[in-house]
Amino acid sequence: MIKGWREFCSMLPPEVRSIIEEMRAEQIRGASYLAKRGAEAYVKLAQLLSGEELRKALKEIRREIIGVNPTMASLYNLVRFVPITGDASLVRARAEEFIRLAEEAKREIGNIGSELIDDGEVIITHSFSSTVLEIFKAAKGKGKRFRVILTESAPDYEGLALAEELESLGIPFEIITDAQIGLFARKATLAIVGADNVTKDAVINKAGTYLLALTCHEQGVPFYVAAETFKLHPEARAEEVELLERPLVRGGRLVRNVLFDVTPWKYIRGIVTELGILVQPKDV
Amino acid sequence: MIKGWREFCSMLPPEVRSIIEEMRAEQIRGASYLAKRGAEAYVKLAQLLSGEELRKALKEIRREIIGVNPTMASLYNLVRFVPITGDASLVRARAEEFIRLAEEAKREIGNIGSELIDDGEVIITHSFSSTVLEIFKAAKGKGKRFRVILTESAPDYEGLALAEELESLGIPFEIITDAQIGLFARKATLAIVGADNVTKDAVINKAGTYLLALTCHEQGVPFYVAAETFKLHPEARAEEVELLERPLVRGGRLVRNVLFDVTPWKYIRGIVTELGILVQPKDV
Repeated sequence: MIKGWREFCSMLPPEVRSIIEEMRAEQIRGASYLAKRGAEAYVKLAQLLSGEELRKALKEIRREIIGVNPTMASLYNLVRFVPITGDASLVRARAEEFIRLAEEAKREIGNIGSELIDDGEVIITHSFSSTVLEIFKAAKGKGKRFRVILTESAPDYEGLALAEELESLGIPFEIITDAQIGLFARKATLAIVGADNVTKDAVINKAGTYLLALTCHEQGVPFYVAAETFKLHPEARAEEVELLERPLVRGGRLVRNVLFDVTPWKYIRGIVTELGILVQPKDV
Repeated sequence: MIKGWREFCSMLPPEVRSIIEEMRAEQIRGASYLAKRGAEAYVKLAQLLSGEELRKALKEIRREIIGVNPTMASLYNLVRFVPITGDASLVRARAEEFIRLAEEAKREIGNIGSELIDDGEVIITHSFSSTVLEIFKAAKGKGKRFRVILTESAPDYEGLALAEELESLGIPFEIITDAQIGLFARKATLAIVGADNVTKDAVINKAGTYLLALTCHEQGVPFYVAAETFKLHPEARAEEVELLERPLVRGGRLVRNVLFDVTPWKYIRGIVTELGILVQPKDV
């Protein structure tokens, strides 16, 4: 593709395009954050365009937002939530409603998920999920004492960003390398991770999640996933979901870097959503 | 401890001490290499001392060599192999015999292990085992075509050193991050790793080995360990073995870095030794 071609042919104003470029560049924050930023791109678009221009731009932004990360169900559900129309105020209202519902969902997941945490709990997590962080915040807010074992989550080290958050909340934690999941899961009493996509048969999340789930299954540690319902993709099977890979070079050599892996339902005790805790469907 | 105290009170000549310091600093090579270097330290000691001085120094070097890495059975078996005596020629002969037996064992493991590899095999491994490399060399020497999936093995990235060796042998390979073990094990037809210690109930090897073994068990990929018999510690149980941890700082934060994890026998199809392939003992 000729460099600049995308911008040349685009209906999207630069203010909107820059939000999408920023979403593409994001390496730490996950499916909730990107869905919210995508909704903000819609709001911006509705402020700048209307009528036929808006309608064309909406068709384009739909592809662009999904293209940011085709693994994330949240982006599909966002673009389904906002209709393709020339009515700018409708677009804006829907995008703002998405943001409001997402914020409410996260708060409610924090509330429900925090009930899983008892005093003295040792919780292991992988990567950095803002939804899981919300559960930690809510539990802390309820006065529960617990500590967290978290993976550094190579190669982008989102774990270090989570450590920063936990430190500011006064929640004790220990950071491990990803390869030590097997050693430390046995010290945990509970595991909670986020999700990028919940399909009919599995949870897709940061690569390494499957390893944690297997280990927890082996060690008898209950393994939960926290996910807003806009991350559900119940009509899809995991094998139909494209797993995004990002180029990685280490010591001058190309290293495979598929960002996500697939954890079958059978290793998951429950999925904490804003509507309650989902358990394994019978037909899986 | 006062700096320099160890040198001050030591019976060990500087030439021997420098070998032990080099062993302590080694971050890439494993239990076979360190045992060989330890045997070379014995040879050097026998060249420099004799009689009562040698006897005292032998008592000290025993502690020092085990202290290099108390997880590695090879170091215990080395120090048991060399008697504490004032007879320098006996010490030298035993140490040289250890080196010769170790070299023969590795060659024979290469020979036996290469028979596990069929044409078209896709072999996944973790970390860098010189014994596993010997199997790859022998298989290549027999004209077998196969490829290797290997982990980078954070935080010391021994995988990159293995990649270098495979490249020079003309064996095709793909490097993955440790967290992708779950994604890539399913593409493999065989798994082979090294060992630092084989106890009555488990194999102790670089952290992450247990995750690979669990995944292979789940995916039906046969999982083998390659280990010279001097890595066996059959009277010990894994819980009695001290797992060495090395300090690690990432982004200004302390990260836990236990170097080894424990893989129970039940996940291991066989242990390739120079005497043949060991299978799970009945009483485990």
